[in-house]
Amino acid sequence: MKKIAVLTSGGDAPGMNACLRAVVRCGLYHGMEVYGVKRGYDGLIRGDLYKMKSYSVSNIIQQGGTILKSARSVEFRTKEGRTKAAEQLRDRGIEGLVVIGGDGTFTGANLLYNEHGIKVVGAPGTIDNDLYGTDYTIGYDTAVNTALDAIDKVRDTANSHDRIFFIEVMGRDSGYIAIETAIGGGAEMAMVPETQTTIEDVINALQSGWDKEKSASIVITAEGSSEGSALEIANKVKARCPEKDIKVTTLGHIQRGGSPSAADRILASRMGIAAVEGLIEGRSNVMAGIIKDEVTYTKLEEAINGEKPLNTDLLKMVKILSI
Amino acid sequence: MKKIAVLTSGGDAPGMNACLRAVVRCGLYHGMEVYGVKRGYDGLIRGDLYKMKSYSVSNIIQQGGTILKSARSVEFRTKEGRTKAAEQLRDRGIEGLVVIGGDGTFTGANLLYNEHGIKVVGAPGTIDNDLYGTDYTIGYDTAVNTALDAIDKVRDTANSHDRIFFIEVMGRDSGYIAIETAIGGGAEMAMVPETQTTIEDVINALQSGWDKEKSASIVITAEGSSEGSALEIANKVKARCPEKDIKVTTLGHIQRGGSPSAADRILASRMGIAAVEGLIEGRSNVMAGIIKDEVTYTKLEEAINGEKPLNTDLLKMVKILSI
Amino acid sequence: MKKIAVLTSGGDAPGMNACLRAVVRCGLYHGMEVYGVKRGYDGLIRGDLYKMKSYSVSNIIQQGGTILKSARSVEFRTKEGRTKAAEQLRDRGIEGLVVIGGDGTFTGANLLYNEHGIKVVGAPGTIDNDLYGTDYTIGYDTAVNTALDAIDKVRDTANSHDRIFFIEVMGRDSGYIAIETAIGGGAEMAMVPETQTTIEDVINALQSGWDKEKSASIVITAEGSSEGSALEIANKVKARCPEKDIKVTTLGHIQRGGSPSAADRILASRMGIAAVEGLIEGRSNVMAGIIKDEVTYTKLEEAINGEKPLNTDLLKMVKILSI
Amino acid sequence: MKKIAVLTSGGDAPGMNACLRAVVRCGLYHGMEVYGVKRGYDGLIRGDLYKMKSYSVSNIIQQGGTILKSARSVEFRTKEGRTKAAEQLRDRGIEGLVVIGGDGTFTGANLLYNEHGIKVVGAPGTIDNDLYGTDYTIGYDTAVNTALDAIDKVRDTANSHDRIFFIEVMGRDSGYIAIETAIGGGAEMAMVPETQTTIEDVINALQSGWDKEKSASIVITAEGSSEGSALEIANKVKARCPEKDIKVTTLGHIQRGGSPSAADRILASRMGIAAVEGLIEGRSNVMAGIIKDEVTYTKLEEAINGEKPLNTDLLKMVKILSI
Repeated sequence: MKKIAVLTSGGDAPGMNACLRAVVRCGLYHGMEVYGVKRGYDGLIRGDLYKMKSYSVSNIIQQGGTILKSARSVEFRTKEGRTKAAEQLRDRGIEGLVVIGGDGTFTGANLLYNEHGIKVVGAPGTIDNDLYGTDYTIGYDTAVNTALDAIDKVRDTANSHDRIFFIEVMGRDSGYIAIETAIGGGAEMAMVPETQTTIEDVINALQSGWDKEKSASIVITAEGSSEGSALEIANKVKARCPEKDIKVTTLGHIQRGGSPSAADRILASRMGIAAVEGLIEGRSNVMAGIIKDEVTYTKLEEAINGEKPLNTDLLKMVKILSI
Repeated sequence: MKKIAVLTSGGDAPGMNACLRAVVRCGLYHGMEVYGVKRGYDGLIRGDLYKMKSYSVSNIIQQGGTILKSARSVEFRTKEGRTKAAEQLRDRGIEGLVVIGGDGTFTGANLLYNEHGIKVVGAPGTIDNDLYGTDYTIGYDTAVNTALDAIDKVRDTANSHDRIFFIEVMGRDSGYIAIETAIGGGAEMAMVPETQTTIEDVINALQSGWDKEKSASIVITAEGSSEGSALEIANKVKARCPEKDIKVTTLGHIQRGGSPSAADRILASRMGIAAVEGLIEGRSNVMAGIIKDEVTYTKLEEAINGEKPLNTDLLKMVKILSI
Repeated sequence: MKKIAVLTSGGDAPGMNACLRAVVRCGLYHGMEVYGVKRGYDGLIRGDLYKMKSYSVSNIIQQGGTILKSARSVEFRTKEGRTKAAEQLRDRGIEGLVVIGGDGTFTGANLLYNEHGIKVVGAPGTIDNDLYGTDYTIGYDTAVNTALDAIDKVRDTANSHDRIFFIEVMGRDSGYIAIETAIGGGAEMAMVPETQTTIEDVINALQSGWDKEKSASIVITAEGSSEGSALEIANKVKARCPEKDIKVTTLGHIQRGGSPSAADRILASRMGIAAVEGLIEGRSNVMAGIIKDEVTYTKLEEAINGEKPLNTDLLKMVKILSI
Repeated sequence: MKKIAVLTSGGDAPGMNACLRAVVRCGLYHGMEVYGVKRGYDGLIRGDLYKMKSYSVSNIIQQGGTILKSARSVEFRTKEGRTKAAEQLRDRGIEGLVVIGGDGTFTGANLLYNEHGIKVVGAPGTIDNDLYGTDYTIGYDTAVNTALDAIDKVRDTANSHDRIFFIEVMGRDSGYIAIETAIGGGAEMAMVPETQTTIEDVINALQSGWDKEKSASIVITAEGSSEGSALEIANKVKARCPEKDIKVTTLGHIQRGGSPSAADRILASRMGIAAVEGLIEGRSNVMAGIIKDEVTYTKLEEAINGEKPLNTDLLKMVKILSI
């Protein structure tokens, strides 16, 4: 393999640049040419590729976002779009493609492989940590640290005013961020999409703190909690405990950005190298992941469709730790 | 003056603990006894005071919130409540009171002085920087830095996706936080309560960036912007530019917490010392402030009612800098 | 088991408080009384214990250092000292002891068990990550993030001035911190105690960057590098490349402190729970650890004496990534 | 004035990029062409200039260091070197030059003006805050915050171990950083170049804490303290108090880097605009500064040679606050 290309696609995640850097440098290390694709599949269709050198990825390991930019591509969802994309690669003699992103990105890569035989390897870049085939995804550790940093600030106010705070973190289908920020933030409870938590449960958990004259309380809710958004949950609780001082904070987009944590830089670097070495070894249509500290390759379909169950021991931990 | 008390009241602000520490230690330095009042005026009414030592304020200069806690007091708004509060002080022989807080806090202090002759000196603790009689309030610098840190993270995503972000910062009546975060965050525009900015203006500012192929744009809005919340403003803009990728983030309560910045620790320390030394010099019913680097004392009524105009040069700066 | 005690000993590490909190709350959760020992083994000998409640460990999960304090005990190294320590526990009917610390701490715990049959379980708290029987120690992730944050700042200067920086991180016998900060910091090279790296090697690595007109370079050295301290190494390099602009920074004690990272808070919480549950299950003279995401218990002697080899794949990564 | 150039020179300081951005955009706003000079005076001599656009300074306001790079120029110290530099400007029809840096930079600019009549305006960029003609220099606020952040971490360890720490901050001739970090860091004492502090004084200050059973103590020393480096001071204290647990940390180069604080971004932006508007108004051979919140212009000779006395009230504050 002499020429490869790399793109980032889907929501950006801290560490994507670190992964990109590893792909480029590992490619160069093995004597290949490496092309960067701007704006994901859309840029691929338009032929927006440029040859990357070692210095093209200098001084980006610490930067959030993605210097290649990311975009949604409507055209790539069509057969015609994917054909154009494949042609752009073939015309340049590019034999392998590394895609950094989440399940939408991998769905596209899978089609590119199945329809056109393009050799693709994915690297899991998404803050949600919801991909099967890897213990952690690129950006997850940073997102949890960012959320925790915000929660530490909110707790200053919660303690000063004896307040109850409902804090919404990202996670439409996955409770990973919520559960880890709840443990790390010393919260009373975490509400996650994977389990049913009723308003009754919330009030019981809070009540047990009030019985011990705990004055301030924090409840972490994932976006996809069964009882709705943090604001909706807070309103329901307020309706039943009108005398309590209840506030809501939705952390939002700050969780996607920022300089990647040490763990994310290293994870991203390992995965970028693993993706390129996977291509060299002849692998294709797989996602590079790290499970129990070992590099693994999982079929893209499995990475997309596999179940990655939330460790429910963690929910019990929240209960023990908030006693 | 042999005995003084100190309380924090109103919304908490980073640096209140640093100010409290300075009040306690400056009091001790001058040979006085210093009493801390828990939970603001409410604690004062209930007699929730305790004698503070040097070590009572050890290791708090770097902590957000207030270790004395803060609370709203309905009772203190009644004449009876204030009479009880004054009695609590007189019964203990406490001759002076330092109150750390914002205009609500000072309104209460003013009544305590007018009705009962209690010698009070205020220290301006509020992130909004909206008090007349001081260039900066305790907590403002930290809040701006916290907001900027969040904006830096959001910009990673804005740049990666060529998006427009509307970011709402605190400031119901004051645009200080908005204007400084707009300058520091490299935003296209700031919308503040003090001036009328129409949706037309916003679109014009954004358009001038689009004309130059600037891909990502950030608009900072204060809570009290004339066109509504960031969400409302974004929806109005979206209605007229439906093809644009527009997102909204409301920073919320994280702006109140966190370890105080260097400037806030020093400002708070200076003000705490100034408040105590003001009492020693016989001042009363005033707020200690710092104007052009000099300690000043402003009558509480003036601090509450005086106008502190936003420096409109700053709005022009945003325009120049986003060219 | 009805009564247990907990102490922290040796060098402090971020997350010790989070671990302590988990020990206390898990003990209370299981209906036990929990005693905190001040100042490690020294406090134990003196009987400096106090009964801890849930609120005793409120609001400490985010704090660096250890609220129980730590100290070296000369007396505990004597048989008489350890006898007194054991008596203090027996007199109070305390049946189990959790010790949070590193190999020195565990050596003491081991003697306490062997000589007096005190049931002890250790939790690995040390930034060096040099304990056998756990993938990570409490404080390591935070220390790496702190070092990286410092390196990011130094790189600003290195890039602005086209300089070479030698940055010394902690690690007298272990290169874990050095190797991970080198990868995460985008360094040219890591010098670790586990492998021999000559000045020749350093110059070769730097030369290959200079050949590519890379202007700024960073070399990370562990305290225990074979060629000496960062200053000594820099002087040796300078002697051979006198025209180069070379600077040295020794990060020092900042690596021990600070608010623990998300990963450290969760790791510490899991280990604190594991230590208490280990005691409940009848385990003794073991260290609780986490290997490949599973709780494990390793005999204290093994934890102290076992070899934990540095993953040398990581050294290869540094080379690939700095091409 | 149609064409101006801008360079950064001397030690880098956080906010230089924000200042550069303001110079470029303010120039463009006023219809001028703006040229960036790489590597300070050295690049000017070599003609290493390039035309800057608005996007040339996009996304740099938050970056430490200087994208134009900085370097010492031996050649510029010669008359021939300066003649070449002036010719490079004249050949391109560049009529004005903005130099961002400290006293060395301004000395060079002053010569360029005196010998060749080049219109120069300086913007004070140095972390030391030692320039006459401005209350604050660009980078100072960030440096103090960085130092404080480090001190907060060290205090975790100091408190956990009841230790005395001597922490050396930057400041060869100026005690500004030392005094403000001492106040903000809750230190026992600050040792600054401007005043004589004997080892006797240090021990007395520490002793007064020990008498009150204060366990941990921090002393901040500026590089240029009369008693030597932090290490030398610590050794002298240790010689007289051998039973004390004394540690030393030298913060070093981390103080120069990092993302600029809010205050520095705004200060730098104001100064960049003031420099350009100064040139437009016909000013030359001056430094733009901000005194008591007003833009001022000070002759370069005065900025270099003027005395900026340390506010000694601050030294008294350290004493009061550490009681």
